[in-house]
Amino acid sequence: MTVNEAGKIAAEECAQALMRIDEKESQELIRLVLDARKVFFVGVGRVLLSLQAVCKRMAHLGINAHYVGEITEPAITSEDLLIVGSGSGESIIPREISKKAKELGAKVVWIGSNKESTIAKLADCCVRIPVGTKLGLQDELKSEQIMTSLFEQTLLLYGDALAKVIAEKKGLDIRQLWQYHANLE
Amino acid sequence: MTVNEAGKIAAEECAQALMRIDEKESQELIRLVLDARKVFFVGVGRVLLSLQAVCKRMAHLGINAHYVGEITEPAITSEDLLIVGSGSGESIIPREISKKAKELGAKVVWIGSNKESTIAKLADCCVRIPVGTKLGLQDELKSEQIMTSLFEQTLLLYGDALAKVIAEKKGLDIRQLWQYHANLE
Amino acid sequence: MTVNEAGKIAAEECAQALMRIDEKESQELIRLVLDARKVFFVGVGRVLLSLQAVCKRMAHLGINAHYVGEITEPAITSEDLLIVGSGSGESIIPREISKKAKELGAKVVWIGSNKESTIAKLADCCVRIPVGTKLGLQDELKSEQIMTSLFEQTLLLYGDALAKVIAEKKGLDIRQLWQYHANLE
Amino acid sequence: MTVNEAGKIAAEECAQALMRIDEKESQELIRLVLDARKVFFVGVGRVLLSLQAVCKRMAHLGINAHYVGEITEPAITSEDLLIVGSGSGESIIPREISKKAKELGAKVVWIGSNKESTIAKLADCCVRIPVGTKLGLQDELKSEQIMTSLFEQTLLLYGDALAKVIAEKKGLDIRQLWQYHANLE
Repeated sequence: MTVNEAGKIAAEECAQALMRIDEKESQELIRLVLDARKVFFVGVGRVLLSLQAVCKRMAHLGINAHYVGEITEPAITSEDLLIVGSGSGESIIPREISKKAKELGAKVVWIGSNKESTIAKLADCCVRIPVGTKLGLQDELKSEQIMTSLFEQTLLLYGDALAKVIAEKKGLDIRQLWQYHANLE
Repeated sequence: MTVNEAGKIAAEECAQALMRIDEKESQELIRLVLDARKVFFVGVGRVLLSLQAVCKRMAHLGINAHYVGEITEPAITSEDLLIVGSGSGESIIPREISKKAKELGAKVVWIGSNKESTIAKLADCCVRIPVGTKLGLQDELKSEQIMTSLFEQTLLLYGDALAKVIAEKKGLDIRQLWQYHANLE
Repeated sequence: MTVNEAGKIAAEECAQALMRIDEKESQELIRLVLDARKVFFVGVGRVLLSLQAVCKRMAHLGINAHYVGEITEPAITSEDLLIVGSGSGESIIPREISKKAKELGAKVVWIGSNKESTIAKLADCCVRIPVGTKLGLQDELKSEQIMTSLFEQTLLLYGDALAKVIAEKKGLDIRQLWQYHANLE
Repeated sequence: MTVNEAGKIAAEECAQALMRIDEKESQELIRLVLDARKVFFVGVGRVLLSLQAVCKRMAHLGINAHYVGEITEPAITSEDLLIVGSGSGESIIPREISKKAKELGAKVVWIGSNKESTIAKLADCCVRIPVGTKLGLQDELKSEQIMTSLFEQTLLLYGDALAKVIAEKKGLDIRQLWQYHANLE
């Protein structure tokens, strides 16, 4: 297989996964983001890296965005939102942090595949991306890629799609956003 | 614009960007990765996040992979490879680290858009992804997305495509890879 | 209060805290480190930062050292050791990760203050630093410093003391260690 | 050597290093922190870990604190302060970032040992901790510890001493600070 072929497969699988996301769920997620005072992200491994990229972009849009484990992470309150990325909905850290966030009165959005999972059940809003668990759920999109790459890729593109729509809703001029971007680099 | 529409745009832009990458450059990069004793990654911001995701996947394939800034980062030697992600090829940290790596005798691969840049000129191998600089180079793919999102997305998908081809070249059974994956999560 | 006075207080409190650590516990910890194939560290917040500094130094001594959450974190096995830093012994992430490590057959060392805690009870070896919990245990060293600063400071100095003794036991020439240090900086 | 002995040496060396810091330099640093709109920290390796711990504590005191490389790092402006930790004053990343910060009109404080260095010369304020460079400057405190451990330890204790004095100057009730502390852990 050439790298061009492997790249084509990746992009096409992402396109299919993104098309399977329910627009109503996305709009509910956006509403919760815009209503929150602060937005926190939690995940592990490559899922966390995709969420951190989304967190960074959200900050460029003027959203008070943080991730769990951040050096200067503030306290979460009942006016805040926690966005959890976990395909299986059972990863230890996201699951325990989700429970803690609920105890503290925050809202929780889960993005993943397994709707029968602990995190899915406690979440206020679920966005299903039907790919990428090791469980191999019956209706999951089959992927030719390694491990759960498709879930992590789709999560990044999905977050960037959310950012695009949020920027539009907030009436931001995209060309002006560089002023909020880190400049010590 | 709906999130589904924004997602579709993102995936299609990635597909186009990936198709514009020269297969010969990709094969040269893969040869350098397979010849290296250790592979280091350097970048900043969301580019670094995409490279970290690729670094993590390379480690799953048995490649001795590290990123610059890692807590347990080892010393680089003349048997090692540095992979630099920088659209403009002029970001301070990647540029200075690339110079240092050359001084220490390591090979350098650059992935970015601006072929006239300092990093591109000192690199042993250049992989051009013609998107995403603030310079707006004439032949760059135009993107409807925010800032340099397309470069960062394409970098992740490209790295995963490289991983897929490397796994094939090494004859790895993809289903066996989970044994190398972190399990404290 | 001058900064010199505040600094003097900090250094003296560290000296006292370090003197209260039981040498037998330290020697047991060192034996477990030297017997392990890989050593993992887990903690949160400033405790994690101190542990990361110790992890980095251990790597300079030729120990295969990692922290939980590291980009290229490998799988833990029954031949490995997990070192947990948690004053209260009840922080969610360290507690859940400790349980998981035990399930996977790894050994666990706990460093903290509250010996009645969940993590202390499941650990194979406990090193007590009697400071720094919010619980204010009766025999804890009183600190004039902010929050749990004293625990985090003592943890760093303690880890560096361990490193010094381990280097001696391994017969390492300290002046030669720079060759293992990151050089892309 | 026992671990207790090695710990005693570490704490005593820290005490001596802290006593050698000029109070006037510390008071000037505090004035710059209190005058700044945002405070940024930059360093590499274990120096960065100590600075991150200080950054986290400063955030608990209500200071708008960030480190260079942070996921949600904002832009620096002429109203902001950059605190640079570098014993030698010549580490590539801190040096290049310091230059960039000066270009952008921000104030720069350097904490390190080599007063003849590039960063020391461009800084608005220098705090000398006379330990820990590989240069072995004539008046540096000799350390029995590994590599530059003493500099990194002293930096952490010094930052915590600064925090203590700043809390006093701001009239903060230390027992109330937990409300600003991350609670998802």
